[in-house]
Amino acid sequence: MADVTILTEADLRRAVPLDLDAIACVEHSFVALSDGGVIMPPILSMAIEQANGEVDVKTAFMPGLDSFAIKISPGFFDNPKLGLPSTSGLMVLFSAKTGMVEALLLDNGYLTDVRTAAAGAVAARHLARADAATACILGAGTQGRLQLAALHLVRPLTRATIWARDAAKAEAAAKQMSAELAIPVAAADDAAIAVAEADIIVTTTPARSPVLKAEWLRPGQHVTAMGSDQPDKNEIEPACLTRAHVYVPDRLSQTRKQGELRAAIAAGLIEPEAHFAELGDIIAGKAPGRPDDAAITIADLTGTGVQDTAIATLARQRALAHGAGTQLKA
Amino acid sequence: MADVTILTEADLRRAVPLDLDAIACVEHSFVALSDGGVIMPPILSMAIEQANGEVDVKTAFMPGLDSFAIKISPGFFDNPKLGLPSTSGLMVLFSAKTGMVEALLLDNGYLTDVRTAAAGAVAARHLARADAATACILGAGTQGRLQLAALHLVRPLTRATIWARDAAKAEAAAKQMSAELAIPVAAADDAAIAVAEADIIVTTTPARSPVLKAEWLRPGQHVTAMGSDQPDKNEIEPACLTRAHVYVPDRLSQTRKQGELRAAIAAGLIEPEAHFAELGDIIAGKAPGRPDDAAITIADLTGTGVQDTAIATLARQRALAHGAGTQLKA
Repeated sequence: MADVTILTEADLRRAVPLDLDAIACVEHSFVALSDGGVIMPPILSMAIEQANGEVDVKTAFMPGLDSFAIKISPGFFDNPKLGLPSTSGLMVLFSAKTGMVEALLLDNGYLTDVRTAAAGAVAARHLARADAATACILGAGTQGRLQLAALHLVRPLTRATIWARDAAKAEAAAKQMSAELAIPVAAADDAAIAVAEADIIVTTTPARSPVLKAEWLRPGQHVTAMGSDQPDKNEIEPACLTRAHVYVPDRLSQTRKQGELRAAIAAGLIEPEAHFAELGDIIAGKAPGRPDDAAITIADLTGTGVQDTAIATLARQRALAHGAGTQLKA
Repeated sequence: MADVTILTEADLRRAVPLDLDAIACVEHSFVALSDGGVIMPPILSMAIEQANGEVDVKTAFMPGLDSFAIKISPGFFDNPKLGLPSTSGLMVLFSAKTGMVEALLLDNGYLTDVRTAAAGAVAARHLARADAATACILGAGTQGRLQLAALHLVRPLTRATIWARDAAKAEAAAKQMSAELAIPVAAADDAAIAVAEADIIVTTTPARSPVLKAEWLRPGQHVTAMGSDQPDKNEIEPACLTRAHVYVPDRLSQTRKQGELRAAIAAGLIEPEAHFAELGDIIAGKAPGRPDDAAITIADLTGTGVQDTAIATLARQRALAHGAGTQLKA
């Protein structure tokens, strides 16, 4: 019988806003991945087709942390018809010494939203031009808005555009983000033009066929593709990867299976065993990042268990410092 | 924000004792596995060698149930030095329609103990001789004792023996089970003799080299091996599988990778792609079980996510009927 700490979404939203600390936390987790000693098994994934749902389980052990997280992320895509969000879930923190349950983080997916947006900012910090000042977000969901907010923390933006298949959603997201970031954010009618005019492009859609074409890209741009986290998803045209000068996976073994790299391999444009330095290698200075201001860079983010362990550990520490949470004898 | 039910180990012990209902519940889950429509992805497994620990995650969707469970089972084998149990963990119940978290079952591994023992009883019910009346348990841990209690529910025993590497533990377990079951249960000094004299043998050890030899087996016996749930475990000599007339896996795809079948394949005694009817096929009458009273039968139980979903669903239903549990707005 041990004490288990229970933290609700409200506790966690107060404890871990999307800020530079959250970005630093996720950046550190990528470095740990590069440094070795991280244990990160393949993702457990279960699709429940009759409910148009899926659930993913991710975990990682990070040396130097006393705890590891296991994250359970359901995505049930008919939920909006019922007035429910598509994604939900929780994280559980365990002692890395005894395996005992330490904390239940009932975040309904909030910490995933934060660590995913933070990873986009980390990618931009290390791959986008230092003077990048404009962004185009493809996708107007929660993650599209968070990616824009996260970008603005590492590359202060002068303006941005948001494109989505549903123009009304793009309009609403643009209006919200204009107010939130206090910069001009416009809904884009034409994705090709919006992409061509941006220094940084972030794709945040659940697309199963590309929403970003290689011919739209221009020298000096950075692209972060973060929507592909399943083997049937594909946001950017495979030719983007060969057009880019630098392609950076978060975790190569994952992007080969379910990232944009998978689609490029399937299209025969990249060898299945081709090696690419990971984002953590570039942050750690072990591999070159952007070679010059004219290069096109692409980050392919599928989401890693090490981000979850890092953000969950930060969240618990912050929440307890705030006096948040309930203790339960279990 | 939805209501999440939190159930503690104490709630769950009261709600789901190891009884015929628990056995029926697990039996039904094996039939569901045979009937099709179950979705059961491969187990997620992470070993943390520096802590002599591992954690497994199992799940399954069962048609006809409104919920599915995800079970997280840590096993940290230095815990007894700290006065803690080696195994712990929890189950989480999710809506199979929306993926929303419904209940947290903080069972510290109790429900796993029950469903694992229940599976042993199901195997004996369908594979042991109808007149089987004596049992030998190899292993004196919690699961050894529970397997004996579960067996006694489906094949009333007249006597039993318990063998363990540590004779004092075997002695203590025998004493406890004699009192609990009100039958003579003796600690066995010599495993070969104890095995030879039993109608049913259950191996419940974490052995990495066999504790049961093929030459000890006699006509008419049934063996359930339930300790091998990792690719480096092996409780019964591979020749047992070829000596047996009927070999029955709980899930063939799992026993090929981490059951006793794995060791027999590795020893070159069984073809890697050899097909065997699963326990659920035999329960459902789709495949023959024991052919006659002289046959030797072996059940190879690695533990399946469908058992977890079944027992978790039963536990929540029973606990709520008892008015147990705490509701939390999450």
